[in-house]
Amino acid sequence: MDVLLRAACERLVTADPPCCEPDSLASEAGIDPAVARSLLPSTEAVLQNIAESALRRQLDHLTRRLSGLSDQTPAHQLVELGRAYIEWAIENRNDFQVLNSRMIRGTLDKEEVNRYHNALQHLTLSMLTRARDQGQLRPDMDPMLLSLVSRAFSYGLARLYVDRQLALWEVGDPDEDEYTKATAALEGFADLLLTNWRRDQPAASKA
Amino acid sequence: MDVLLRAACERLVTADPPCCEPDSLASEAGIDPAVARSLLPSTEAVLQNIAESALRRQLDHLTRRLSGLSDQTPAHQLVELGRAYIEWAIENRNDFQVLNSRMIRGTLDKEEVNRYHNALQHLTLSMLTRARDQGQLRPDMDPMLLSLVSRAFSYGLARLYVDRQLALWEVGDPDEDEYTKATAALEGFADLLLTNWRRDQPAASKA
Repeated sequence: MDVLLRAACERLVTADPPCCEPDSLASEAGIDPAVARSLLPSTEAVLQNIAESALRRQLDHLTRRLSGLSDQTPAHQLVELGRAYIEWAIENRNDFQVLNSRMIRGTLDKEEVNRYHNALQHLTLSMLTRARDQGQLRPDMDPMLLSLVSRAFSYGLARLYVDRQLALWEVGDPDEDEYTKATAALEGFADLLLTNWRRDQPAASKA
Repeated sequence: MDVLLRAACERLVTADPPCCEPDSLASEAGIDPAVARSLLPSTEAVLQNIAESALRRQLDHLTRRLSGLSDQTPAHQLVELGRAYIEWAIENRNDFQVLNSRMIRGTLDKEEVNRYHNALQHLTLSMLTRARDQGQLRPDMDPMLLSLVSRAFSYGLARLYVDRQLALWEVGDPDEDEYTKATAALEGFADLLLTNWRRDQPAASKA
């Protein structure tokens, strides 16, 4: 049986992504094919634009949420950044899935895609560094390394949520909804990473 | 352009997984189709068996690695569990991708799949509880919640590695290879979660 399962697994993993060439998208969207081709001349251009557009909207969402925070201490900002990241993934499930699928792997070395990732890391890192300077982070830890640790955690949590895998691990009340579970995990991680972030915690502005 | 990108995104996300019915797998693998059909009567059976077989091998790999550890303190076991999990994902990239893809989402509610996840959570939880009892975990933290936090982190890190996204975030020396980067992140997370796990750290047996 193993040989059959291996053949099936190989087939699933190596399958080509569905065709995204501009003409067929134009006819689906009811747009003049010539206009579509001038905007997006190839499948590659379509995929790159999907990635860039999703990353741009993600970063806009995150920075908007941060600027709406009434408490601007770095620890609160970090927790809010994590929350906003998870919520963006939930509310923009399709974008999140495509952005993190092998279908757009070819775009990962593109300058624009790298620029968004740099901006997101820079944002995280600046908060971690300020949190350390204000004594809200363990002084023996490297903020740069912690930015990657935080990213791996938030990404993993968002993925488990979006892929509906969160229910596979029990936490607390089995009737708790998945959002409550994800929030508990996020706050648990914040407890490991930060000190005193819960002190005088204000309600986050959802503006 | 947005309407074109949305159409493309929708197409990428809703694409059917490649067909895995037993006859075509049998002819690809050079096996009698009647035998293939008796082992795996449907595409659904193929997908469920892929998931179960991958989870079984993953759990075998993890428990083997743990039993080969010379130091059996719970903190060391936890760090080794994380390492073994990441390494299994790297060495079994196809299994890991399929196991965590929407293609096998239909198997997530199957009893067997749930049993493996329960076993993995149980293993993690027992180590976290023993670590707390031995003073290697912060006493104010709930081991059950930390098991989910640890899972989200390890899963996110493994995914970033396997999906080749680790390079998008800088950590330390830009010439560092991805495995070194992943190991540094794993140990950074262990530093947040555990106390004294580095003390007298033995070389892990790779048996």
